[in-house]
Order: sequence, then structure tokens, then C-alpha cells
Amino acid sequence: MTKDTQPPTTESLLERRAKLLGPNVPTFYDQPLHLVKGKGVWVWDAQGRKYLDCYNNVPHVGHCHPRVVEAIYQQASTLNTHTRYLHETMLDYIEQLLATFEAPFASAIMTCTGSEANDIALRMAQAVTGKRGVIATDHTYHGNTTAVSQLSKNMPPLGGYGEHVRHVPAPDSYRPLGGESGTAHALAFANQVQNKIDELEASGMGFSSLIICPYFANEGFPDLPKGFLDPVQKVVKQAGGIIIADEVQPGFGRLGSHMWGHQYIGLKPDVVTLGKPIANGHPVGAVVTSTDIMQQFRSAFKYFNTFGGNPVSSAAALATLQVLQQENLMENAQVVGAYTKHGLQKLAQKYNFIGDVRGVGLFFGAEMVLDKTSKMAATEFANRVANTMREEGVLLNKLGIYYNTLKIRPPMCFSQAHADLLLQTLDRVLEKTPLHL
Amino acid sequence: MTKDTQPPTTESLLERRAKLLGPNVPTFYDQPLHLVKGKGVWVWDAQGRKYLDCYNNVPHVGHCHPRVVEAIYQQASTLNTHTRYLHETMLDYIEQLLATFEAPFASAIMTCTGSEANDIALRMAQAVTGKRGVIATDHTYHGNTTAVSQLSKNMPPLGGYGEHVRHVPAPDSYRPLGGESGTAHALAFANQVQNKIDELEASGMGFSSLIICPYFANEGFPDLPKGFLDPVQKVVKQAGGIIIADEVQPGFGRLGSHMWGHQYIGLKPDVVTLGKPIANGHPVGAVVTSTDIMQQFRSAFKYFNTFGGNPVSSAAALATLQVLQQENLMENAQVVGAYTKHGLQKLAQKYNFIGDVRGVGLFFGAEMVLDKTSKMAATEFANRVANTMREEGVLLNKLGIYYNTLKIRPPMCFSQAHADLLLQTLDRVLEKTPLHL
Repeated sequence: MTKDTQPPTTESLLERRAKLLGPNVPTFYDQPLHLVKGKGVWVWDAQGRKYLDCYNNVPHVGHCHPRVVEAIYQQASTLNTHTRYLHETMLDYIEQLLATFEAPFASAIMTCTGSEANDIALRMAQAVTGKRGVIATDHTYHGNTTAVSQLSKNMPPLGGYGEHVRHVPAPDSYRPLGGESGTAHALAFANQVQNKIDELEASGMGFSSLIICPYFANEGFPDLPKGFLDPVQKVVKQAGGIIIADEVQPGFGRLGSHMWGHQYIGLKPDVVTLGKPIANGHPVGAVVTSTDIMQQFRSAFKYFNTFGGNPVSSAAALATLQVLQQENLMENAQVVGAYTKHGLQKLAQKYNFIGDVRGVGLFFGAEMVLDKTSKMAATEFANRVANTMREEGVLLNKLGIYYNTLKIRPPMCFSQAHADLLLQTLDRVLEKTPLHL
Repeated sequence: MTKDTQPPTTESLLERRAKLLGPNVPTFYDQPLHLVKGKGVWVWDAQGRKYLDCYNNVPHVGHCHPRVVEAIYQQASTLNTHTRYLHETMLDYIEQLLATFEAPFASAIMTCTGSEANDIALRMAQAVTGKRGVIATDHTYHGNTTAVSQLSKNMPPLGGYGEHVRHVPAPDSYRPLGGESGTAHALAFANQVQNKIDELEASGMGFSSLIICPYFANEGFPDLPKGFLDPVQKVVKQAGGIIIADEVQPGFGRLGSHMWGHQYIGLKPDVVTLGKPIANGHPVGAVVTSTDIMQQFRSAFKYFNTFGGNPVSSAAALATLQVLQQENLMENAQVVGAYTKHGLQKLAQKYNFIGDVRGVGLFFGAEMVLDKTSKMAATEFANRVANTMREEGVLLNKLGIYYNTLKIRPPMCFSQAHADLLLQTLDRVLEKTPLHL
């Protein structure tokens, strides 16, 4: 491959993208980033400028972690094939993965994406219940297949939502439903789900499952106490449905205290889906469930995935899990996460437009408001802050129901020194960014 | 990772699979193969035994091709991220891929699997036509998502087929529909499709697309003349529908004379989907279409795929395409394919149970029958032949409407010497395998 000595300009890359990919293929930031290199928590652009990556969860144990790269290289050099032949690495991986779960989780399917995993999970619910009705929260994202995009209100499906799909408002600890908090908030959420179950049963579709991110990551990770989901869990089980926990974002130790988001909140799901960080960027996803549910799914549907669980993908996932464990990155997420969140809380005392600081482990953020009394979302301001941070060399982004929450979710090898740089830069940017343009 | 000095037994691996993966996860052959190494057209089992791989199309340019491995290693060591940042490699790849297509193909989406590609293709058809009705052939396989598994009669969907799905019998050159051949056969196929279009329009679902493998690979790759699909193409276009060509199996030069199956048969599809061989085993798929259709899809649906088109996957796909071209593997497929098919035809003169020899390039096979007059499928015999070939060190398999066709589809670096070994082994196995047990 010949390369020009000068890197291509941003404009030329954007032109090629528009021509080759079509319209509506967004990039991050007003000035899109052309990245060429990554290492640990750092990425470099084509001009050689270095950025602190406080956003990307896919390179979970750090960009280009040498042990993961080596595992991919060794296995790709040795053999890559599919699961119609016997191979140990997928089995080794599933065993080590299952060791991080509690009973009754005992079985898994490996896929190539979290979308594929959620697509299977919905069919597991159908296989178990004989019904198709599914309930999701209203600002979530569970993936891009035809079936799964039915769940996402921020990526609405072609042709509209099916009759089998119902949405409930996600919990919002900063602006709780009906102004309620604590147990009343939890019961209000469960009641919403009960109403939708009743609708589905009345409509004849029947109720199969509730699918949720147990951390409500896309919905601004509300600050919910352990046990918050107990009432909704009871409602789902009483209706004969199953719970699918989408662990694509909170999973793999990101929350610091627990390997999985459902363990953190105290939820007991029936099916768990995994994606993004599972293999540090190699295309892998997985569905984890009980022996019983797996048997019902496998008996009802003949699933095969050519690339799913191939030796190279399995080696990448296994290396990622081992690095996570051997480098104590979950503990690191807990310690550094708490340190960083404390720093954010101090900034919230200084700046009136930081309405709320939320999150745990290495997944947290700050909700920007016009003032702390009205809690009116400062969406446009949050966007300017994220863009200015990028200009200052720190990558983060914004999300939440109002897109006004700064989202901080760095690779798991994020240290206190990195946190200091993040906090100092954020302080400087908040100082100089006007709330109103 | 500690390893026992002795490789695990087949029994222990099967036990672990049953425990960890659940039931109904099939392996190839009566004696499943535990593969540990691959190189070019060769694979090795855990006992060190070497097999000639005449079956696997995923390692398209040869198992563990060093240039593909090196491309993966280099890029995985440098940066892996997603397409919300700018990166050249996906653009370079799409440009080089599109150079192998004719107008109006000008745009692509990269995915992680062929299933994801077909799942998108169906939505493109919906975006363009505003309708959902789809027609597929009756013994095909287009993938494993909820939406796409609706198309596959050999992997029936949970809950049955949707009202929007219709199947037509695949062409069968050995047992043509109504005994017709040539133009009459082609017209009969087109008439079947017209009838299903009429049904869909009458039902109110409307007709959006015909999806076919232009080589009808899973259906025993019938021997069809160029232009065979002209009548059906006319029928689809007149009805305002689009044609999706699933090139997962015939694509990337496998047929020897053309890069794509649709070019070989003279079909002009609107959307083309790619998978398995695209990146020599790295999880990649793609959808290729016109600028116009891409714009309609992108305007109707906000598609994003976290792993799709990432720099490592793009580097793997780019290296695979470049090796294919620079090592002239398409030309090799034409020459060696013709040589091997000729050898098979000679075997068909010797053995009465070889009813038909079909195929082109490095994708061909021999249909086993009880006798050439009745053409009764010798399915059980074909299965024994495939198993005995495996015992003799040559990997192939069987497929087709009656599962009685030996399927030969080796990596594209298959040589005449490999063909000789295949043919000699097959001759020896056919000689000693009784037609009836």
C-alpha cells in the first residue's frame, strides 16, 4: 500500500465518506477526529496530536493492549475456522466467562456483535414463553438488526414499531417520575411495566420479556439504589416473562464493585447479552443464560453463526478477560472512578450549571443544566463543552434523555494521573465556556 | 494459559460443548474433527494428522495467509476504533471493492457478518419500495438474524414464517421443474416468482424484493446458462421490486471467470451482500448498492455498527482482496476448477452412482444417485462418502436439495496437485464404498 507522505485532510476524508458511505453517517465533534494510533488511554490524530481518551469503552483494557494483540496474532497465524470443528479456545473462554456469573448462568452462544446477541435474546424469550411481546425503556439502544432496532427509540425502525413492542420511561433519578424518589420511584417504574404487560396480554401479542440495560447507560445512568429493580423483577416474573439484561455497556467490571451491572443493582436476569468491550475491539458478542433456557432455544431454533466463537475471536475475548482480571482493572475502576467522581463533585460545587454528578466505577458523568432550580437541560452548552474538551485534548461525549450529560467512560486502565488531567482540563474548559452563546 | 501436554480427547471436547453450548450444536462428520492448525489448503488435527481442505471457503486465500495475518497484526497493534472517527482503511477498502463492480454500484456499508448484511439489504428494499414482501428460494440460507432467518427453509424461524415471506422452488438443472430445460426452465422459474409477487400484492403486504444466491449454492449449484435469470429479473423490475444478490458463497472470484456470481449468470441486482470469505475469516460482511438506494436507506434508517468497518476488520478485508488479485487466485480458480471438474466427469463415467457433475471455478460437486435413470438421491451414500473421505484425509461435505451432492469448495490457492490428490482419493473411496449398506 503506497501512502502519501502527507496524511489526507479531514475534508478529503469527509468527501470520500459522503461519496462511499452515503448520507447520515455521523462523526463525533464539530471538527471530526482523524485518529491514526492508540495506546492505553491515549489516541493520536494524523497531525501527531495526543488525546486522553475518556470516552471509548470498546478498547476495554486499553487501546492496542499488547497481550490481546499478541493473542489475536498467534491464533490468526495458527488457525481460524468455525465451530463445526472442535476447538478448545471457545470452550475455555466460555468457562472463564461463566465463572464471573452466578447460578443459574451456565451456557453461552458467541456471536460477532451485541446486536446479534440481543437478536438471539429476544428469540430465547420467545422460545421460553411462546410469546413475542417485549418491553424496553424509552431512550435506550440495543442494536441495529431489524428485530432489535424495534427496541430503540433513538434509532426508530423502518416502517414503525411492531405491535409486539412497548416502551416505558426509563428511571431518572434527577427528575424522578411524578417527582417520586426511593421506593416510590421503583414502584412507579414497576407499575409502568405492569401496565405495558397488561396491554400486551390484552392485545393478544402476549408478554415475553423486559429488556433493559441494568445501568440505563444511554439514559444518563440514573443514580439508583441496590434493589431498585426488585419490584419490576417481581412484576415480570409474575407475568411469566423473562428479563434480558443488556450488559454491553456496564459489563466486564466497568462499574468497579461488580463484574456485571445486574449484580450491581441486584437484578436477577434470565438472559444476559454482551458486546462492545468483550474482546477489546475484535468483533465479538455473546448471550449467556441458564441451561434450561439454552435448551429451549436450541430445541426451537437451529442457530449457527459462521464467525461466532471462531478461534481468533475466542482468543481475543479470552485475552481481554484475563488482562482485566490479572491487571485488577475492575478494582482500578472502583478506586479511580471514585476519585474522579469526587473531583467532578467538587467542580459541581464551583459551577452552577453542573446540575448532577452521577455514575460509578469508570462510567460517570455530569448533567449540565441552565440552573440548578429549574433543572432545565443545557444541551447546547454540554455540546460546546464536549467540543472544547476535544480541542483541549480530552475526548468525552454527551448522552442522556436530554443529551446534556457529559459521558465519561474511559478504557479501564485509566489512572489517577489521567483523572487529574481530565479534571484540570474540564475545570479550565468550564471556566471559559459561556453557558449561553 | 497452561496446557496439558496431551491434547484433550474428542469425547471431552464434545462433553464440554454439550455442557457449555447446549443441545443441537452440530459438528461435521461422524467422527468430529479437532483442528489445531491451518496453512494454505491444509489443516491439521490434534494428533498431527494433515487433511487436504476441499471444503472451507471462509479462509478464501488460504488458511492463515501471512499477508492477511500481518495486516491484522499491524493494524491491531496500531489502532482499532469505530467509524465515528475518520480513518482511511475502510475508505480504501470500499474503493477497491467497488472497483470490482459495474455501475450503478457505488456505495457500501461494512458489517461484521453476512447475516447483518442481508438484514440491512431487506431494509434497503423496504426503504426503496415502502413494502416488506420478500421472495426467496426454497432451500436457501441467508443468515441467522430474526429477520433473515425468515428466508431460510432449512433453518425455520421461531413462530413460523411471516406473512411477508414467500418461497419459490430453486432451479434444478438435473431435475428441472416440470421436466423443462433451457428457456422454458428459466420462464418457469420467473413464473413462480410472478405468482408470489401477485400473492404478496393481493395480500396487501406488497412486494419489495427477490433475494437469491445467484449461484444457488446451497441448492446444489444447478448448471444454468448465462441469461437464465433474465426473465425473473424482468418480472421483478416490472413489479417495482429490487433484486438482492447474496454473494456470500459465489463471490470474490470463486467462480473463476467473474468476480461475482451475478456477473457470471448475467444478473443485474440492485443490492449485493457479502460475507464469509471477505476477510479470510475475520468477522466482516458488507452491503454494496447504488448511491440512490444507499441514500434512501440512510435517510429512512439511522444505521450504525460499532465494529463494522473498524480499522482492523478493514485491513483484513483489504489484504484479502489484494492477495486475491495479486496472486491471480480468480484465474487459478478457473484453471484448476476446470481441471478438477474434468477429473470428476471422468469419475462419473466410471461410477454409475455419480448422476451429475456440476459447478464452475472452485465450487463444484457431484450428485450421488441410486441410478442414473431414476435419479433417486443417494443421500445416505453421499454421507458415507464424505465421512470416508475425511478418514482418508480429504475434507469435503454434501449439500443440495436432497443433501446428496458432494460439495467441493476449497481455499482459492488450490492447485492441480491438490486436485490430483482429491481425485485419486475420491476414486479410491468410491471404489470401496458400497452404494447400499
